[in-house]
Amino acid sequence: MSATREILPPSQVVAVDAMGGDHSPDVIVAGVAEAARLHSAVTFLLFGESQHLRKLISKFPEVADRIVIRASDVVIPDDEKPSRAMRAEYESSSLSKAIIAAALGEAQSVVSAANTGIVMALAMQHIGLIEGISRPAVASYMPTLRNESVVLDLGANLTVKGEHLFQFAILGTALAQTMLAIPNPRIGLLNIGTERTKGPNHIQRGYELIKGNQWPGDFVGFSEPHDLVNGDVDVLVCDGYAGNIMLKSTEATAHLIGAYTKASFKETFLSRLGYMLAARQFAKLRRRTDPRRYNGAVMAGLKKVCVKSHGGADSLSFTAALELSIDMVNEGYATRVSDLLPS
Amino acid sequence: MSATREILPPSQVVAVDAMGGDHSPDVIVAGVAEAARLHSAVTFLLFGESQHLRKLISKFPEVADRIVIRASDVVIPDDEKPSRAMRAEYESSSLSKAIIAAALGEAQSVVSAANTGIVMALAMQHIGLIEGISRPAVASYMPTLRNESVVLDLGANLTVKGEHLFQFAILGTALAQTMLAIPNPRIGLLNIGTERTKGPNHIQRGYELIKGNQWPGDFVGFSEPHDLVNGDVDVLVCDGYAGNIMLKSTEATAHLIGAYTKASFKETFLSRLGYMLAARQFAKLRRRTDPRRYNGAVMAGLKKVCVKSHGGADSLSFTAALELSIDMVNEGYATRVSDLLPS
Repeated sequence: MSATREILPPSQVVAVDAMGGDHSPDVIVAGVAEAARLHSAVTFLLFGESQHLRKLISKFPEVADRIVIRASDVVIPDDEKPSRAMRAEYESSSLSKAIIAAALGEAQSVVSAANTGIVMALAMQHIGLIEGISRPAVASYMPTLRNESVVLDLGANLTVKGEHLFQFAILGTALAQTMLAIPNPRIGLLNIGTERTKGPNHIQRGYELIKGNQWPGDFVGFSEPHDLVNGDVDVLVCDGYAGNIMLKSTEATAHLIGAYTKASFKETFLSRLGYMLAARQFAKLRRRTDPRRYNGAVMAGLKKVCVKSHGGADSLSFTAALELSIDMVNEGYATRVSDLLPS
Repeated sequence: MSATREILPPSQVVAVDAMGGDHSPDVIVAGVAEAARLHSAVTFLLFGESQHLRKLISKFPEVADRIVIRASDVVIPDDEKPSRAMRAEYESSSLSKAIIAAALGEAQSVVSAANTGIVMALAMQHIGLIEGISRPAVASYMPTLRNESVVLDLGANLTVKGEHLFQFAILGTALAQTMLAIPNPRIGLLNIGTERTKGPNHIQRGYELIKGNQWPGDFVGFSEPHDLVNGDVDVLVCDGYAGNIMLKSTEATAHLIGAYTKASFKETFLSRLGYMLAARQFAKLRRRTDPRRYNGAVMAGLKKVCVKSHGGADSLSFTAALELSIDMVNEGYATRVSDLLPS
């Protein structure tokens, strides 16, 4: 297979942990095959059990020449402690090998559906942070009434200082510029109120530091979940504790309302009929808010692009995570971060 | 008027700040009138501008004899700092006078739609905390897939210790017992994950203390917003920072989905027709999730019942806040808290 790869001009290589996540490697391979179809200049290095992978890849003959297997029979259990995952016994795991491939430059990015804490720990160990960034952040997109916004940190850091929030603002600005094509993003800082005097000390200090910097866009100040939803900020900076609670609260509420709505429609003959008539619009709405479209959390701040897919991702959402990583490499994310850092 | 009051057997008196909130005193008086209709044994003391109040009350002759005006021409501006609101110049304000009436035992409870921070500061100053409780908490009900659950603290305390979280569990248990009629409530502690090792130090410490106590119900451990929504906990204990972010995130998400849904239905002729057919079910759904039904945050931990209505409350939701305070007095909330405290 490597012979086939060499005649192609691979403008980009993505390292993929084929064994991470709940439905690996089947959905991983299907997701990779779809991404390969969509991006003809990208090659994928799949790390995992070679025999199993070979069989799965053979189902996609039209892209099989750009899906290269790298054998690894070691899988890190999802409930392993991140600190233990960094031990030597796991260095030949599919995840470690995929991350090391990115670290060594054999691939420009790495994608995995494994446990967030483990992916982050190994990426920190092997890839490391961009100079000037002292903490990584988990970043993602969230749908708003206008479009989409970048939110970070979603849980990598429970306790942060103002300095870290400032760095998250840099990381988020670069993400909005490269991924949402917003050259001058509006930045907000998540707080329990918009009044200048409100909030805990680290948020207060973060405000001062972000306020004191020159931004390509605007710092709009303290923001609440409401401001994110309304699309009044393009980047919402949070400490990982509040960001994680916010993310999980929005997911839970969406689930609650969905369940209520479904039950309501089922109740009477007229409402069932009404549902059928509006079914196309409902399908559209579901597509718009489909969490699979937003799959792929960026491990922001690392020297190489590292995207974490949801563990329960299906192939469609794994493709979304792969496309996110491909786009980030194309847009030169890491360089953008360095350019934004104050000298 | 007081002559009329004396021939009645007022089993309960509620002190009402008639001047707090965005639409006072009009909606306040309308809300009080409706509560008076529903609770024939309750008398309401209305603190505010007497001439204006007299005119408004005259529209409700059938209950006017149980709505007693207490003159106050001083209103605390909503943007006043809580620390300044405690100064002598505001002691004759409608809010201060209403709180003092409860503190002195002239009323068993006090209800206001003024700024939360100000209500809390004045209630702490004049009423004070139940013995054994060192921090007050803002508590409210939230709808779940099964029923309703109590959530606290929603923002009174940004930084808390484990000891405070333990006390919030007591306050929440008493609320679930008295207000939701759940004798053995399941208690959860909000965290960013359910694994025992996850979360910040104060949450870890809170876990130990709550775990170490005898409860009428069960301590189910760390919980996520998802567990609340599923109705898997009857009481969700949070620090005020995370609780506030969670509350605002759920409100914002509900707003986002509502706007999406509305827009979807408007798009085509069929979907508009579908909406009309299902309109009754939608109305039912709206009633079920109507935030006005959940109006009234309890200032939990105080010696007297103190309920804060949403500032933008309409008369329907102000009535809900009044009914909450009436029920809490009937159920002997403060005594219940004392009984639950470890001796």
